[in-house]
Amino acid sequence: MTAEDKNIRIQPEKLKSEFTRILLKHGFSEESAERCAEIFMLNSLDGVNSHGINRFPRFIKNVLGGFVKPGAVPSRTHSFGSLEQWDGNLGPGPLNATFATNRAMELAGENGLGLVTLSSTNHWMRGGSYGWQAAKKGFILICWTNTCPNMPAWGATDPRLGNNPFVLAVPFKKEAIVLDFAMSQYSYGKMESLKNDNRVLDYPGGFNKSGELTTDPAEILESWRVLPVGYWKGSGLSLLLDILATVLSGGRSTHQVESCTSEYNVSQVFIAVDITRLNNFPAIDNSINQIIADLHQSNPVRSSDEIRYPGEQVLQTRMDNLQNGILVNRRVWENLLRL
Amino acid sequence: MTAEDKNIRIQPEKLKSEFTRILLKHGFSEESAERCAEIFMLNSLDGVNSHGINRFPRFIKNVLGGFVKPGAVPSRTHSFGSLEQWDGNLGPGPLNATFATNRAMELAGENGLGLVTLSSTNHWMRGGSYGWQAAKKGFILICWTNTCPNMPAWGATDPRLGNNPFVLAVPFKKEAIVLDFAMSQYSYGKMESLKNDNRVLDYPGGFNKSGELTTDPAEILESWRVLPVGYWKGSGLSLLLDILATVLSGGRSTHQVESCTSEYNVSQVFIAVDITRLNNFPAIDNSINQIIADLHQSNPVRSSDEIRYPGEQVLQTRMDNLQNGILVNRRVWENLLRL
Repeated sequence: MTAEDKNIRIQPEKLKSEFTRILLKHGFSEESAERCAEIFMLNSLDGVNSHGINRFPRFIKNVLGGFVKPGAVPSRTHSFGSLEQWDGNLGPGPLNATFATNRAMELAGENGLGLVTLSSTNHWMRGGSYGWQAAKKGFILICWTNTCPNMPAWGATDPRLGNNPFVLAVPFKKEAIVLDFAMSQYSYGKMESLKNDNRVLDYPGGFNKSGELTTDPAEILESWRVLPVGYWKGSGLSLLLDILATVLSGGRSTHQVESCTSEYNVSQVFIAVDITRLNNFPAIDNSINQIIADLHQSNPVRSSDEIRYPGEQVLQTRMDNLQNGILVNRRVWENLLRL
Repeated sequence: MTAEDKNIRIQPEKLKSEFTRILLKHGFSEESAERCAEIFMLNSLDGVNSHGINRFPRFIKNVLGGFVKPGAVPSRTHSFGSLEQWDGNLGPGPLNATFATNRAMELAGENGLGLVTLSSTNHWMRGGSYGWQAAKKGFILICWTNTCPNMPAWGATDPRLGNNPFVLAVPFKKEAIVLDFAMSQYSYGKMESLKNDNRVLDYPGGFNKSGELTTDPAEILESWRVLPVGYWKGSGLSLLLDILATVLSGGRSTHQVESCTSEYNVSQVFIAVDITRLNNFPAIDNSINQIIADLHQSNPVRSSDEIRYPGEQVLQTRMDNLQNGILVNRRVWENLLRL
């Protein structure tokens, strides 16, 4: 079967309306369904199907399992100056995270910066979503989530740390520079995609059950022994992000997120800065432009390569998907139609 | 020559008074000399000689070269709500960073969190210093610095990114959990130490001049092709930390820090959170304790290993150095006495 047979192009509005239809069948209000569908669609539009269409059925499963409460919205438990703590009440992760991002931006508008935390929230799907949302409105966003225990600490064999995705986003040329990375060298979503395509990793991504480094995603998905980014460094960063998420939100830490199958009730942190409140605001876009121009002058190892900034490739994928329809797996699409 | 011959134990007060003596000879006021000497001494006390006694002669060289102005103190250029931008006026990096940490903590006391930036500041030596300082006083601290261009972007051969150390610190049991890591898999300080001891790296730390991965620190110090933490991920994080430091401070970005020899005029960011302002403050130490207890239950790959949190080993080294004197290289000590 060729890649062309396997994949299909779907118009963004068509994909979104399918998501909306299914969400409405599962207890979402019209407004919530529409907003949640939009986020899933935008993730696929940006080429991140692992947290768009491919992940959607599992999201619905978590709604059916009672782990995600379609009608729940966050409630504020505490406020002091520029920081606020909110209880996510197990609402839909993408909606809760969008809410917290917006609230952090409001606080930043008032105080220069704002910190909003969510306890008892759910998987936010693609962390970069919130970075793009905030940066396009002129805010720096730093945010992270903890996860279920899915990664061994460096030097250990049993998964006790989360891969705790971490996001840094900054406005740039009316779009954004967005870094969105998990603490494992490869995300589980990426490894699942590659496994489904019978492909291997470019670099060792973990240990197999015999304790050997491997590039076979199937072996790592079996052993759960993913490699932390930079060995001991990513292991330490994962631990600190979990501690900070737990401390700042008052919510659950990774070791308290019991199941990696349902993976619900996690903790998240959102820090926004309103760049219009900075002294040097008028010069900011130009100064980022100079940094990127310098990066682009790098000598690539392979002369055909271009050295890109995080998010640069996303813009090209988005443009392509807008022009030609979103590229999705044909079987995934057909399964969606039956939900 | 055995390790015993090579090294010598120096009492903390003795080391500090030598630093003070030398600083007083180079234009520092009594108070500045004393505070700066304390920071260098504490870095060696914690076993980080690469940014303690070993680095001190280079610091003095930068004072003599006019890159570090001993009498300069930061001046505030902008204030809005919980954020402040300060000009470091090329003052001593460790004193400027201590000042900014304290100021971020003051803002956090008033507003829950505070963000302070420094433009035109200098190398802060060991970033972890400021994490330990803040966390011991009950604050979370997130801070980072940009550096000279000392690391190629992933896929490139020429150093255009900085290794931009990043620090996360949280109070724990009247001490702290402190993560302090550079975006290169190994810091230049670490590679210099290993090279001086004729030792190799545990894992490939970069490419040699022929483009091959190597564990020989001398080859990497020659090629400047250090490996970013987690390949493309650390490369992206380095870029974003530089962009954020530049945008938030209005100071220089990595590509504008001209020389890696003098490496002066960098930009830094300090974000503090006052944990007493959180709803769940009374439960925080216990909840961190549970996270650490869970980490400690990890199954180590080698049964003799213990899985530690970032900073745990530092506490043991500190205790040992307090009891027996600070372990320093004999020749480095003798050279110090001649400064």
